[in-house]
Amino acid sequence: MANLELMQELAIEGQTKILLLVLDGLGGLPMTPDGQTELEAAHTPNLDALAARSICGMSTPVGPGISPGSGPGHLSLFGYNPLHYEIGRGVLEALGIDFDLQPDDLAARGNFCTIDPETGLITDRRAGRIPTEVGARLCEKLRHIHLPGLETFVEPVKEYRFILVLRGEGLYDGLTETDPQQTGKPPLPVEPLRPEAADTAKLLNHWMAEAYKILADEHPANGCNLRGIAKDPGLPQMPEIYKLRCGAIATYPMYRGVAKLSGMDVLPTGETIEEEVETLSQHWDDYDYFFFHVKKTDSRGEDGDFDAKAKVIEHFDTVLPDILALEPDVVLVTGDHSTPALWKAHSWHELPVLLWSKYIRPDGVKEFGERPCMAGGLGHIYHPDLMALAMAYAGRLAKFGA
Amino acid sequence: MANLELMQELAIEGQTKILLLVLDGLGGLPMTPDGQTELEAAHTPNLDALAARSICGMSTPVGPGISPGSGPGHLSLFGYNPLHYEIGRGVLEALGIDFDLQPDDLAARGNFCTIDPETGLITDRRAGRIPTEVGARLCEKLRHIHLPGLETFVEPVKEYRFILVLRGEGLYDGLTETDPQQTGKPPLPVEPLRPEAADTAKLLNHWMAEAYKILADEHPANGCNLRGIAKDPGLPQMPEIYKLRCGAIATYPMYRGVAKLSGMDVLPTGETIEEEVETLSQHWDDYDYFFFHVKKTDSRGEDGDFDAKAKVIEHFDTVLPDILALEPDVVLVTGDHSTPALWKAHSWHELPVLLWSKYIRPDGVKEFGERPCMAGGLGHIYHPDLMALAMAYAGRLAKFGA
Repeated sequence: MANLELMQELAIEGQTKILLLVLDGLGGLPMTPDGQTELEAAHTPNLDALAARSICGMSTPVGPGISPGSGPGHLSLFGYNPLHYEIGRGVLEALGIDFDLQPDDLAARGNFCTIDPETGLITDRRAGRIPTEVGARLCEKLRHIHLPGLETFVEPVKEYRFILVLRGEGLYDGLTETDPQQTGKPPLPVEPLRPEAADTAKLLNHWMAEAYKILADEHPANGCNLRGIAKDPGLPQMPEIYKLRCGAIATYPMYRGVAKLSGMDVLPTGETIEEEVETLSQHWDDYDYFFFHVKKTDSRGEDGDFDAKAKVIEHFDTVLPDILALEPDVVLVTGDHSTPALWKAHSWHELPVLLWSKYIRPDGVKEFGERPCMAGGLGHIYHPDLMALAMAYAGRLAKFGA
Repeated sequence: MANLELMQELAIEGQTKILLLVLDGLGGLPMTPDGQTELEAAHTPNLDALAARSICGMSTPVGPGISPGSGPGHLSLFGYNPLHYEIGRGVLEALGIDFDLQPDDLAARGNFCTIDPETGLITDRRAGRIPTEVGARLCEKLRHIHLPGLETFVEPVKEYRFILVLRGEGLYDGLTETDPQQTGKPPLPVEPLRPEAADTAKLLNHWMAEAYKILADEHPANGCNLRGIAKDPGLPQMPEIYKLRCGAIATYPMYRGVAKLSGMDVLPTGETIEEEVETLSQHWDDYDYFFFHVKKTDSRGEDGDFDAKAKVIEHFDTVLPDILALEPDVVLVTGDHSTPALWKAHSWHELPVLLWSKYIRPDGVKEFGERPCMAGGLGHIYHPDLMALAMAYAGRLAKFGA
């Protein structure tokens, strides 16, 4: 369903507050067939008590079998159908380093690579994962490439990764990548996927040629590739759709970036969950909707560290009473995707979800966990519908039709 | 899903009878976190016994978070996607007083209002909720307004509400409302939303100007507004789609009206549930499908009267054996939307639904209530799909594909 036009038509202003608590990569798997998931194994008296007063269920971020990246995982939580609204990798990467991307900027993710100088073929797509300092020094050199009429930005991200941003008139996206995705092949030219993008492709190919001259004497990073060349997708903005003042609290730039693209105000915060709660508390009166993001559940899942992921969940559980003491009207707890320690990566598994308001029908679920939530009263739903439900429970949607 | 073209392609004639029992606003909420819903609290031995022989589930009328009006709530029960088929407020209001609306009539809901004679600004959008008799007298006066080449009807509804219906050639809908939706503003002119409607807009603005002359000396109702100016949406007709002879039994005009728009025969009946059962019994042989509507569950929900709503459900339960004695082949029991006494209005919550036929798979649900139905074998479904299920269980849908 998730119909943003209908939401915009029905949304009404109110005094109620909606709180979306996202434990990144929350969903897990048992490490042995008769084991528990990370969430089930974690000692979470506060989440369990909240679940017992809530309606629970299982939610699919994008579609059955689809493992979402962070972009689509979050867009869906914010009510956007992530198959309709895509954020390019270049844009996400720029957001991920807090780059102040402007609406018409063209952003690409860059990867330093190693090229065989004899054949011109790629021998290492990640240039031996050079240290971040080396990447930064190379970016400094690439900043000297001048494109007529344009500003260019080259910023290091981490190790072999950087971003290239072009700013100016007449830039179009709809461009192929240079990375052939395997070694033993040469970098590919940027090709336009639509006629308007032909000049932009030429500019990028010129930039690539200059970059290869500059990097020629470096080792191992004597080449680079550009991927996911894209602009800000121009998402409908949440404050206009939902008539909500939206604030985002996240310790990692990527999530702040997706929130900003969606129209939220990004609130400065610290590195810890406690600092995030402090930020939430300080800004409580200023917003109607908060997106509160906890990163480390995903990181520990990607590490394959079951116990450490459970510990992050337990850590979050200890601050939950302070969060609930702020008296939100609607609380959603879920994740943007599953990251089971057993799988060590984002996965397609459904997310346990808990929805609390004064107006829910209790469903008998007494613990917040994957198995209890499978029997929850929300059934099996889709992430993009969670926002509509939150709006309804907050009394912020007018009746449809007479 | 709910694909009317597919239904029409697959529908076959038969001897079986489908009975849709609608308890308006059936879905409820507990008044306290550990309480029961209205349906759960009601003593309903007959519904419970039927549930134990049925397959149960939870059904969403329009979409997650959407609180439907009576129009969309019922259209969805009749198998129409209510986002594709909308009935204008003027049409619904006309149907609501049993006005004999013709297919090309243009109907508007009218509201008497109070205007500051000095400034022309609206000071009360409902004219102090004048008594119905006063509204009727004012309508009598407004009937004198003549529009060239057209018949006009002005009929009182209740208190400050009336309908204006124009009948004749060349009328188009696609028109804005005159009600600015707040006090301190003047009434707005009717504007055409498409070029064909320009002349109709002029006619309505002329009518408004004349109405203001006639009402000038009245107090407090010295003005009026027109809202939801619309024509019969021309729905595909149920007898053609489903090859069913369809009869509707409802004590309130609005529901009779929506049934009529859908192509059902509206059967004259009395005021009580017993009289409705009597009507059902008398016409049992004449129809293949019956829509049987109980209004008071919704009314008591809107009053916020939990016990009274439960009593209406209990009242219905007492007549259920007489209904089942008619030996329908398929029975559906549900509501058009939830109206929890706690919420005092139509809400977005799912509806408990029970489907009985000889061909169901029993699901272990022993009581008809929201919590038991959450665990029912139908799972979580959508209202528009209920009609397809009923058709299938009635043996009235051919196989799809070879």
